[in-house]
Amino acid sequence: MSDIMQVLGNIGSKVDEKMLDLLAVGASKDFQEVVFHQVKAGGKRIRPALTITFCEAAGGKLDDALSTAAAIELIHNYSLILDDIIDDANVRRNLPTTWKKYGLNFGILASTHYREAIEEGVLQSPKPLDVSRIVADTIRELVEGERLDVLFEQLPSDEEYTERHRYQNVNLKDYETMIGYKTAALIRAACEAGVICAGGTPKLQKAAREFGWKAGIAFQMADDVLDLFAEEEKLGKKLGKDIYEHKLGNVVLLHSLAQLSDNDRNFILTILRSHKPTETDVQKVISLLKQTNASNLVQEKAKQLVEDAKKALKDFPNKDATKILETLVDFLYQRSF
Amino acid sequence: MSDIMQVLGNIGSKVDEKMLDLLAVGASKDFQEVVFHQVKAGGKRIRPALTITFCEAAGGKLDDALSTAAAIELIHNYSLILDDIIDDANVRRNLPTTWKKYGLNFGILASTHYREAIEEGVLQSPKPLDVSRIVADTIRELVEGERLDVLFEQLPSDEEYTERHRYQNVNLKDYETMIGYKTAALIRAACEAGVICAGGTPKLQKAAREFGWKAGIAFQMADDVLDLFAEEEKLGKKLGKDIYEHKLGNVVLLHSLAQLSDNDRNFILTILRSHKPTETDVQKVISLLKQTNASNLVQEKAKQLVEDAKKALKDFPNKDATKILETLVDFLYQRSF
Repeated sequence: MSDIMQVLGNIGSKVDEKMLDLLAVGASKDFQEVVFHQVKAGGKRIRPALTITFCEAAGGKLDDALSTAAAIELIHNYSLILDDIIDDANVRRNLPTTWKKYGLNFGILASTHYREAIEEGVLQSPKPLDVSRIVADTIRELVEGERLDVLFEQLPSDEEYTERHRYQNVNLKDYETMIGYKTAALIRAACEAGVICAGGTPKLQKAAREFGWKAGIAFQMADDVLDLFAEEEKLGKKLGKDIYEHKLGNVVLLHSLAQLSDNDRNFILTILRSHKPTETDVQKVISLLKQTNASNLVQEKAKQLVEDAKKALKDFPNKDATKILETLVDFLYQRSF
Repeated sequence: MSDIMQVLGNIGSKVDEKMLDLLAVGASKDFQEVVFHQVKAGGKRIRPALTITFCEAAGGKLDDALSTAAAIELIHNYSLILDDIIDDANVRRNLPTTWKKYGLNFGILASTHYREAIEEGVLQSPKPLDVSRIVADTIRELVEGERLDVLFEQLPSDEEYTERHRYQNVNLKDYETMIGYKTAALIRAACEAGVICAGGTPKLQKAAREFGWKAGIAFQMADDVLDLFAEEEKLGKKLGKDIYEHKLGNVVLLHSLAQLSDNDRNFILTILRSHKPTETDVQKVISLLKQTNASNLVQEKAKQLVEDAKKALKDFPNKDATKILETLVDFLYQRSF
């Protein structure tokens, strides 16, 4: 695990520098303060590590993929700035969120600028048109995933559209559609873009997509467990955030609801539908969830996906790189368990 | 003038169809309702008319420029959706704004989707990399223009960043910087992109940029007059919107303030700084502005810019098209006077 931290550290510092370069293009000094905030808050930089390592796995070099990797990580950060506005979130990584620190207007303008920093990275990539196509498709999928995530929320709204399209029930298929768009699509794009930067064959591109999709689904499942059962200090945000945010789209919650008594299920749904759940309420929900085997079930499923993902790596020529990819996907899924 | 309405009508119907096609890509049926709203509210489609007519002026055909023209008009509509959120605006073109109708979250998601519909148009253009470069630069300029526009507002804010960077005074140079980014940059891009789609020479590209820039500044000046002195029904929005929105960045206001007595100036600034100006207050401000020659001054300046813009057309080979461009720029600036 220390090796993988070193890989992430090395790639991360290069990608961070590149991201700041891309964000600085066309940003006045006064605005740079605003747009740098989200990226400077840090992050594990797993997605750009996937892009760069897939580029290497397919026979390319780090530099072939650097601007694309930075663009991919900027997409992630773009989505975080927007998520934080939509979820009314004040804190991320123990720091105020961009919109909270600079106000809603500048939060929105910062996110708009992010999209053009992404484009800058795309234009610097060795295959700008192919990467542009993937980026556009992926951001659209993120939007649809976020839309579903909002509609899976259970707090009654006074917005007519939201009420009209609200999911009263969320099944596992709905859930997978949502996280496919919201999480797996970008991880898949990160992997595929790396192969494209290396000039890899369509067959390798397809394998990278398969790896990324499965790893992405496993990652989101791990994240759902983490949201409810992690140690708060490690998480850098409030435990049970999904519950505070009225979200039914958490796979542990969905499995638990199927197992619990009517009474317990109704209690949980009442909390999800209440305007301001107290900490006691949320703790009570979490302890009910702990009584089920949902967390184990999710872990098993995620583990299986991770093993399946690894099988997609067999045809890549650079075996040192595929070994790192195996460790990366283990890291993705183990960080929460 | 009826000819120009016919040109705009013909181009508009083709561009509208194309914009809806681009917006439909990757949008679920439920989401299409949200993203179509802004475009279906209509508009004069002046920017795409410039793109298509510049393409023709440089020797190209309408179809060479159609997807690019649609992308340009989508940029405009993207900025309107965001402006309406930032300005807390409820009504545009006599309809509820996107965020007002669908809520803030879906307003933000719709705008994010717009950017990818723009990319779709870019990727369909005959010169996707050149157009992509212009689009990215222009959107960044729109963001900076919007940032300055917000900082020119005079309502005290509880946002630390806003207070720290607020303009206490706005001079004409600040104003031109702001409208250059916020308005002229996109009109310039519309013109230049048309020449690029036709495969026009760098010299023609430069001429198109010059035309677009001057026409854009004149257009914004006309818009500032319109905001304060138009007939309300024709405007489709509230008269004196800039004053209700505490905006010092209106050229008529700036010229007037320089001419009025200390008393009148202080009265106007007090209204701009008051939380909710009444209709009587705004009417009083407008009648003070009418006592100055600011409107005439602005008209003269805009007229001169329009004449200068026309001179940039001399080297274009298709004279039928340049004639339309001359009429278009007259239309731009005359619609308010």
